[in-house]
Amino acid sequence: MARTRVRTGALVAIALAAVAGGVALGQADKWFPSRWGAADQRGAANRITAAKVLEAKSLIKTGTVYQLGRTYESAMPIFGTRHFSLRIPQAFGPLGSNKMIYHDEVVSGELGQIGTQFDGLGHIGIGDLFYNGNNRLDFAKAEGLQKLGVENVGAIATRGVLVDVAGYKGVARLDGGYEITLADLQGALRKQGTEIHAGDIVLVHSGWGSLWMVDNAKFGASAPGIGLEAARYLVEREVVMIGADTWSMEVVPNPNPELQFPVHQLLIPRNGIYIFENLATEELARDRVYEFAFFFAPLKLKGATGSPGNPIAIR
Amino acid sequence: MARTRVRTGALVAIALAAVAGGVALGQADKWFPSRWGAADQRGAANRITAAKVLEAKSLIKTGTVYQLGRTYESAMPIFGTRHFSLRIPQAFGPLGSNKMIYHDEVVSGELGQIGTQFDGLGHIGIGDLFYNGNNRLDFAKAEGLQKLGVENVGAIATRGVLVDVAGYKGVARLDGGYEITLADLQGALRKQGTEIHAGDIVLVHSGWGSLWMVDNAKFGASAPGIGLEAARYLVEREVVMIGADTWSMEVVPNPNPELQFPVHQLLIPRNGIYIFENLATEELARDRVYEFAFFFAPLKLKGATGSPGNPIAIR
Amino acid sequence: MARTRVRTGALVAIALAAVAGGVALGQADKWFPSRWGAADQRGAANRITAAKVLEAKSLIKTGTVYQLGRTYESAMPIFGTRHFSLRIPQAFGPLGSNKMIYHDEVVSGELGQIGTQFDGLGHIGIGDLFYNGNNRLDFAKAEGLQKLGVENVGAIATRGVLVDVAGYKGVARLDGGYEITLADLQGALRKQGTEIHAGDIVLVHSGWGSLWMVDNAKFGASAPGIGLEAARYLVEREVVMIGADTWSMEVVPNPNPELQFPVHQLLIPRNGIYIFENLATEELARDRVYEFAFFFAPLKLKGATGSPGNPIAIR
Amino acid sequence: MARTRVRTGALVAIALAAVAGGVALGQADKWFPSRWGAADQRGAANRITAAKVLEAKSLIKTGTVYQLGRTYESAMPIFGTRHFSLRIPQAFGPLGSNKMIYHDEVVSGELGQIGTQFDGLGHIGIGDLFYNGNNRLDFAKAEGLQKLGVENVGAIATRGVLVDVAGYKGVARLDGGYEITLADLQGALRKQGTEIHAGDIVLVHSGWGSLWMVDNAKFGASAPGIGLEAARYLVEREVVMIGADTWSMEVVPNPNPELQFPVHQLLIPRNGIYIFENLATEELARDRVYEFAFFFAPLKLKGATGSPGNPIAIR
Repeated sequence: MARTRVRTGALVAIALAAVAGGVALGQADKWFPSRWGAADQRGAANRITAAKVLEAKSLIKTGTVYQLGRTYESAMPIFGTRHFSLRIPQAFGPLGSNKMIYHDEVVSGELGQIGTQFDGLGHIGIGDLFYNGNNRLDFAKAEGLQKLGVENVGAIATRGVLVDVAGYKGVARLDGGYEITLADLQGALRKQGTEIHAGDIVLVHSGWGSLWMVDNAKFGASAPGIGLEAARYLVEREVVMIGADTWSMEVVPNPNPELQFPVHQLLIPRNGIYIFENLATEELARDRVYEFAFFFAPLKLKGATGSPGNPIAIR
Repeated sequence: MARTRVRTGALVAIALAAVAGGVALGQADKWFPSRWGAADQRGAANRITAAKVLEAKSLIKTGTVYQLGRTYESAMPIFGTRHFSLRIPQAFGPLGSNKMIYHDEVVSGELGQIGTQFDGLGHIGIGDLFYNGNNRLDFAKAEGLQKLGVENVGAIATRGVLVDVAGYKGVARLDGGYEITLADLQGALRKQGTEIHAGDIVLVHSGWGSLWMVDNAKFGASAPGIGLEAARYLVEREVVMIGADTWSMEVVPNPNPELQFPVHQLLIPRNGIYIFENLATEELARDRVYEFAFFFAPLKLKGATGSPGNPIAIR
Repeated sequence: MARTRVRTGALVAIALAAVAGGVALGQADKWFPSRWGAADQRGAANRITAAKVLEAKSLIKTGTVYQLGRTYESAMPIFGTRHFSLRIPQAFGPLGSNKMIYHDEVVSGELGQIGTQFDGLGHIGIGDLFYNGNNRLDFAKAEGLQKLGVENVGAIATRGVLVDVAGYKGVARLDGGYEITLADLQGALRKQGTEIHAGDIVLVHSGWGSLWMVDNAKFGASAPGIGLEAARYLVEREVVMIGADTWSMEVVPNPNPELQFPVHQLLIPRNGIYIFENLATEELARDRVYEFAFFFAPLKLKGATGSPGNPIAIR
Repeated sequence: MARTRVRTGALVAIALAAVAGGVALGQADKWFPSRWGAADQRGAANRITAAKVLEAKSLIKTGTVYQLGRTYESAMPIFGTRHFSLRIPQAFGPLGSNKMIYHDEVVSGELGQIGTQFDGLGHIGIGDLFYNGNNRLDFAKAEGLQKLGVENVGAIATRGVLVDVAGYKGVARLDGGYEITLADLQGALRKQGTEIHAGDIVLVHSGWGSLWMVDNAKFGASAPGIGLEAARYLVEREVVMIGADTWSMEVVPNPNPELQFPVHQLLIPRNGIYIFENLATEELARDRVYEFAFFFAPLKLKGATGSPGNPIAIR
């Protein structure tokens, strides 16, 4: 473990250097092959071990279950020209003397990138390079990503941590564009009495989710979230995934106006760490559930960049 | 508990009478309001209690995780004229000095009714009547079911049981059209030393899944599965959900040629019990995992009849 | 012809009586079988005869061609929760020594009911009854309408007439909710020196199209257009189709607040007359092209309610 | 005209040289800028002049109309993993005292590249280069092609010519893989007494369409069609578009096994000539309609590679 932490620290130091002063990410340092080998397609999901599953188990105490997914519906905020459509066709049947009748639904949309969404390793690149240095010109095909598809991730059953930054700052909702600093993160964790362990997933509660379907324009125009500093800390803590109640997880716009979603790049291609957006964290925050068992397995959409989801938190 | 069982037994007796001799289901007996009240939209998901969650917890012993979802891909078997399409559009970006690039996927399909699929309470009717006597002419709207949508189900965290009927019968794969009888079910449970508890989910391993993407035509032309007799037994056991490694869960064609998917009607509209199809049960069977913790939460697709999924089994 | 006109007049008189004073359309009178027989599925398209084609030919004088379709794009105004999505997937190829590469597009949407749209006979009903008294419970199936699908319409090659009502009223754009009266229609025709012949298609220019993608909210909130009075006149003229530069063709809201799209009902189910919406009529109006050859054939989308299109006007 | 022809001849000579002996197309010669200038996005549609429209008019003699589009339906043959889905959602309404009810259809598919399909200039490249030397890396964006989109084509109203090669060869259907030679083309034209004029569209009847929905596997496995030799002749004739009753228009497989769809490359990127596939040519052939007025305008799908269609032929 110690050895691993040292190696991680070194990588992060390199990353720090690389992004300082607007230097383009991914040029100045060597960020691949990944620590899990050059052929790896699972990234930080490799940190889900039987020990982490048993640690999750140990957090189940009352049997209270929280759903962390929001409802997919036509009025939800959607990024850019992505879309979500659901229609119930005419019923089929009746069939047989038992008058069997059934309904389907026909759905279309950017399925892994609308609503509550899990970002896989094929979603984000630094220029043409993705996780493990895979070049999108080689693996991104019309019929699905030939590498890094979300079907490789597997089940994430591990300890989950909620960091209630809004609560720590004493507000119901952080402002759009507010960068959650390392001090904020550490302060909130200290106040909560929560530690982050290697192999955890971490959810950041900003309160921004209270705008969901209440003021979609404001919701999508900016977002509070962690910046590179806090993200590096979580990278060093060797987490598996970072989620939030915003559409971007990270702060938007970035305080450095030259950078676009740099935390996505730090986490996904450089460190194989997953992102989960538009999570419903408000009930966990309300009930002060700061550690919990977390269960989620992405839909095995072959060659997809992400997955919709309704992850489960249990305490 | 005893009282509940008596009440259930009575209901099942009525159901037995109703379906005997080809009598149309839903005509001769009173199957609503549901035992959870006339307004209920969650059916047997009401059986997921904190106690069941803690029972699931107690089954986690080694931390071994199984994914039960199959991969969604264009070559998978699909029923009738349903479809599944996934395409990776041209990349977006590069954005910023950090050369942020991203991929999406655009997906269309009958999302809750293709591949590994969870059937909600709005999927199946007896004539025009659905769970709790809701008439489809009232609640089935183009933009989504106004009642019984899958977003009402909530998380299913409970004890799971695998019944390896193929193993019990000493074959790798049951024949298409083979009805798994009550004797088969009970024999397999006895051989395994497994009991079914109220609030469990039950998975039936038939071996039929070995045809998946190997012989799609054969896979879809028929299926082994439980018939009404075994289904009634499971209804009486007060399970939450029944799953299988076939596209229909129940035997197809039904031995009674006048009946079309009668087990679907017995479970979903009459008893609020969910169905999960096209599950990957082979690893559980191989490893003789007959009881396990089961975790699944349907995508909260507003007004949908079902959900895709990748449920998790842990022992 | 004379005989036909008398018969039509009688029918219209009945229709007039039926809709007067808020009496529900379709209750008080006998509007089927259609004049083309009880089995007919083509309605007023039956008026497209070789003679009409030759009349269209005679109007081609300069060889100037006008496209009447608007561009389908994500920013266009769309009614309610309908959608339009177009994505260019990753390229396929290169293939062969000749380095063949190709692009596709993946599109989803309510294809016959978004953008420039042609309404077929399966689109509009009076209660459950559609053209020729067909009951939607019998013919509207999930996989497509089993009757009245747009594939039955066939090619419409005939004389086209533009009625520039905005020009007649001396405005660039009629107001939303303005009902184009019979006097307006006749006044504009008189001013233009244009007659309407049986078997023509008629386009009404209101100027409302100038709001397209300029002020989508205003565009969709209401519309100028013909009401029942002017529509009856066109029914009596035995036209094939009525089009306009609005999303509704008819006035919205109807001056009678109890009526919803009554002109649609008068035209489509009662008289088999087609509607074409969101047409680009501005160039015809600018160039004072009041009669022209009109060419359009709906996409043969089996069982669809309508068709997208880019009809051609030639003078 | 003479000058144009000379220039065309020279270009064709270059093209001939370039493709001989398996030399990769597009490497050895200079095929852009196009004859219509470096900024042109319409290609051979520029040949549609008022004179051609009037020539089309002159061919309308009896007023007989032919639809050339096939029906779009789920059982039609589809290339590779493309798809076509149409569903009729639940009806909307009833609305108002007039009980307005309406149906929509929700459609998804590779809309310009399934069924009867018109190939635009953004569909086919030679390596990364498309018509007028546009590089796909510059113009092919997820939300639509930024150049060469099918919305630029405009209406095609011109003289149409049918070449009944099956009839000329005395068969109902040419064999799959049969290359229609220049001698075949010229022989058929001579037998018919038909000339090809600059600005015409040319349809080749092979009889292959008789397999449509009769033997989809055979239909899609190969196709008869013109090869490079006959295609060059048509390029030299300065046609606007070449269509056929096959999915590929050109012969598949190409007699030169190293080449994949080389006729597509000769026509679309090199010469801006359009292709129309899966046309219903059988009625024209049956009625010996060898020249006719042709009317078609692609759907203005912004940034699309092609368009579905139901073109009209009139004599």
